[in-house]
Amino acid sequence: MPPSVTESEVFLAFSTYATIVILKMMLMSPITSYFRFTRKSFANNEDTGMAKSPEQKKKMLVANPDVERVRRCHQNDLENIVPFVVIGLLYALTGPELSSALLHFRVFVGSRLCHTVAYLLPLPQPSRALSWVLDSGEEDHQ
Amino acid sequence: MPPSVTESEVFLAFSTYATIVILKMMLMSPITSYFRFTRKSFANNEDTGMAKSPEQKKKMLVANPDVERVRRCHQNDLENIVPFVVIGLLYALTGPELSSALLHFRVFVGSRLCHTVAYLLPLPQPSRALSWVLDSGEEDHQ
Amino acid sequence: MPPSVTESEVFLAFSTYATIVILKMMLMSPITSYFRFTRKSFANNEDTGMAKSPEQKKKMLVANPDVERVRRCHQNDLENIVPFVVIGLLYALTGPELSSALLHFRVFVGSRLCHTVAYLLPLPQPSRALSWVLDSGEEDHQ
Repeated sequence: MPPSVTESEVFLAFSTYATIVILKMMLMSPITSYFRFTRKSFANNEDTGMAKSPEQKKKMLVANPDVERVRRCHQNDLENIVPFVVIGLLYALTGPELSSALLHFRVFVGSRLCHTVAYLLPLPQPSRALSWVLDSGEEDHQ
Repeated sequence: MPPSVTESEVFLAFSTYATIVILKMMLMSPITSYFRFTRKSFANNEDTGMAKSPEQKKKMLVANPDVERVRRCHQNDLENIVPFVVIGLLYALTGPELSSALLHFRVFVGSRLCHTVAYLLPLPQPSRALSWVLDSGEEDHQ
Repeated sequence: MPPSVTESEVFLAFSTYATIVILKMMLMSPITSYFRFTRKSFANNEDTGMAKSPEQKKKMLVANPDVERVRRCHQNDLENIVPFVVIGLLYALTGPELSSALLHFRVFVGSRLCHTVAYLLPLPQPSRALSWVLDSGEEDHQ
């Protein structure tokens, strides 16, 4: 028996996969910045310092479809990865079988990565919808 | 004395109530989908495959007030349930009295459920505002 | 050696700093309400009960730049503080050196407070961008 539940193999596996999806979610911020700069579309007046004229400044504050797409993907991550981390943590603390815990964590992480790829490219539906359904199913079954 | 703090009764109570509010928050995603399909209002171009003409496609990408209402409610959940889970977890680990912990958890979960009902129907104000104040007060007092 | 990892000094330090940033994030809700009332800009029809005419009601439902700024700042908090709490918790459970853990936690909390001040005033760029970079760097290095 491990000395404490936080040192068990299931908890270590949870830590690894939680860190992967959290880093993936954090990656959406620099991707948003990248699209904001390449598409020249910003949300704040003070971000448009590179504009040469007031008209150009105004144009830079209009929402761009590519930027909005990344932001929706980021929002969807928040709405799905946060529940995964919370429920996954509580699940890991109940001391489940390592093999079934690994299966749950891997399916979630895999389907979340597919979701991001399907959202950003974008792949034709229902690829994004299916990876989202897999995500949610995983969380509910834990 | 329990063998570890994560096996105490307070922690079990926290796990139960945290899971309830997280599942409630996750329920907002299918509700959003339901409103998107019944109101025919989508955010992504690839979601409008059922449109029969380019005009209909364009119309499907306009924001719908009912969909936006569910999305605001979901966002409000993120902004309030995430702090509850974090502060509740740290609070449960300090080993508080079971009775006062249960009171805190139940008031929070109850007022959050009222908030969602008041937001989605919608009930006339100040029902939504009051349930939000109760939520925040609960979190601060822990 | 402490009796359990959740009673170690690193974990206590994590709890303190996590609570500070979570309370700071929760503070964004009343700030949003304050701006909504002073700027008379609301998102829901039932919030405009104080309007005296249908035209005034309609005007109250238009987005206001100050309100939107606070909401973007709140959203940015969600996107950054949630990963900090998750990664910080897992990091605290690995039993790191107290001094280096304190350094990480304090730099994150400090740069997040600077980010909020720079966002809300607003200070000229790149003050907001720099505090965001410091935040993210902190999280990745843990």
